[in-house]
Amino acid sequence: MYDVIVIGAGPAGMTAALYASRSNLSVVMIERGAPGGQMNNTAEVENYPGFESILGPELSDKMYNGSLKFGVKHEYGIISQLKDCGEYKEVYADDKVFQGKVVIIATGCEHRKLGVKGEEEFAGRGVSYCAVCDGAFFRNKKLFVVGGGDSAVEEATYLTQFASEVVIIHRRNELRAQKIIQDRAFANEKISFMWDSVVEEIIGDEMKVTGAKIRNVKTGEIQEQATDGFFIYVGLDPLTAPFSTNSLTNEEGWIPTNELMQTNIAGVYAVGDVREKKLRQITTAVGDGSIAGQEAFNFIESKQ
Amino acid sequence: MYDVIVIGAGPAGMTAALYASRSNLSVVMIERGAPGGQMNNTAEVENYPGFESILGPELSDKMYNGSLKFGVKHEYGIISQLKDCGEYKEVYADDKVFQGKVVIIATGCEHRKLGVKGEEEFAGRGVSYCAVCDGAFFRNKKLFVVGGGDSAVEEATYLTQFASEVVIIHRRNELRAQKIIQDRAFANEKISFMWDSVVEEIIGDEMKVTGAKIRNVKTGEIQEQATDGFFIYVGLDPLTAPFSTNSLTNEEGWIPTNELMQTNIAGVYAVGDVREKKLRQITTAVGDGSIAGQEAFNFIESKQ
Repeated sequence: MYDVIVIGAGPAGMTAALYASRSNLSVVMIERGAPGGQMNNTAEVENYPGFESILGPELSDKMYNGSLKFGVKHEYGIISQLKDCGEYKEVYADDKVFQGKVVIIATGCEHRKLGVKGEEEFAGRGVSYCAVCDGAFFRNKKLFVVGGGDSAVEEATYLTQFASEVVIIHRRNELRAQKIIQDRAFANEKISFMWDSVVEEIIGDEMKVTGAKIRNVKTGEIQEQATDGFFIYVGLDPLTAPFSTNSLTNEEGWIPTNELMQTNIAGVYAVGDVREKKLRQITTAVGDGSIAGQEAFNFIESKQ
Repeated sequence: MYDVIVIGAGPAGMTAALYASRSNLSVVMIERGAPGGQMNNTAEVENYPGFESILGPELSDKMYNGSLKFGVKHEYGIISQLKDCGEYKEVYADDKVFQGKVVIIATGCEHRKLGVKGEEEFAGRGVSYCAVCDGAFFRNKKLFVVGGGDSAVEEATYLTQFASEVVIIHRRNELRAQKIIQDRAFANEKISFMWDSVVEEIIGDEMKVTGAKIRNVKTGEIQEQATDGFFIYVGLDPLTAPFSTNSLTNEEGWIPTNELMQTNIAGVYAVGDVREKKLRQITTAVGDGSIAGQEAFNFIESKQ
């Protein structure tokens, strides 16, 4: 029986494991891939304090080494189920079952992809899913934003702080975003719209994105357009499928918590991107993680 | 007129300045001392992810350099007053007045000191004010905890995860802490009590604390006692005196916010240790800071 089972080894999970283990709790951290989570898909991080600029995978490595320092056990595994057995919890991963007094969920989320040619190839080299993370790399550049919901339109407005021109590419002829968000975008001189349009292919040279093939869904016409970058906002999926029977999530699948990271199950915490919250960043992930790691100690102590 | 005025240059303030400036807002960060805040009083930091271990002042330097990268202006000054002028705010610092659309308060807090000989001399070398930060440095050591309130007794219990023995030194013959916290301490075999006692002097060799002179307030008797370290929990003071007329603080002087770091004044945010919250760490400070820095952009955008 472990004191704490951490599910996921992104910045939130690694920090939770660090704090719990530094409080002398026994901790296992289960991850299905390389430690680091979304950081591994990030070329350059320049908004994590302490580093002026660092490669995402390098920051992953550094955090990972630090997180193991106080005896955290790292296991590979794909989680299928979480069982609340009252005094303890069970986590099923592949053919193993882990038992723990506390479970900290740090599985993160995934950006929905367009699924077009060039998207994966140019990820981090002109294709981004996070304006707050990557917008500052596109000063005085032309950008395409794909999507028509709140995030797409809000982030398009945000990107005009940097870009010389932002084009919103949307498959319909009207936006889904809230009216106030739409109004701000319509009033912004730097923003224009390509209606009834979808991206067919993202084009680039060896280094980075240079343009795209855009198809008009009404006429079927395909045009090639130049751009310096893509911000794709067609949806964000929390990675909470294994917890679907636990009544932990809201309608969209995110896990609501209070400010102590407590979910609606005693002894189960959620941290980082998987949590229902507004700003998903490395900074907020490590903040969440430290709180849950520390609360794990308080929870176990209160049961003794 | 600045977009954002950040008051305080600890990890929370520097991160707020980084995020706001990286969103292309004009930012001034006002600090009365060296940038870094409490980190400058911390010998070794081993719970900030990305660094296995780093000296506090070194981490301050790194964060400071990163925070200026996007054009933040750094000014020295002692704040005397914050004026809410509706559309903008005024911050009075020495003989200057700064105007800004948004103010982010990151002034932090101070640990109340015993005011005895040796306390300052051995700070960071056996004298600590934060068990979560420094407890892990005292494995199998004997510790003194000074105080009788919730924090003192809770942290004494926390410290038994590491220490071989914890003695709570309290000036009265009963604790002020909540009953449930007291009960846990009384049941803990590693914890003992020195009642009616105060620390007269902290003693050490060239390297670190070795003991203390303890005075019994009833008999007047002074005893010398050996110890490896002190955790002093006689109070924590938020640095909010300049905002006393702003109705921003709760009864104890802390600034309550919601999870977007908004205070009860539109356009005024509070982040880091000065905020009413449970866990005061570098991790939670940078989390807070990034949220407020980003919200500053949203706030200014919504007014246009």
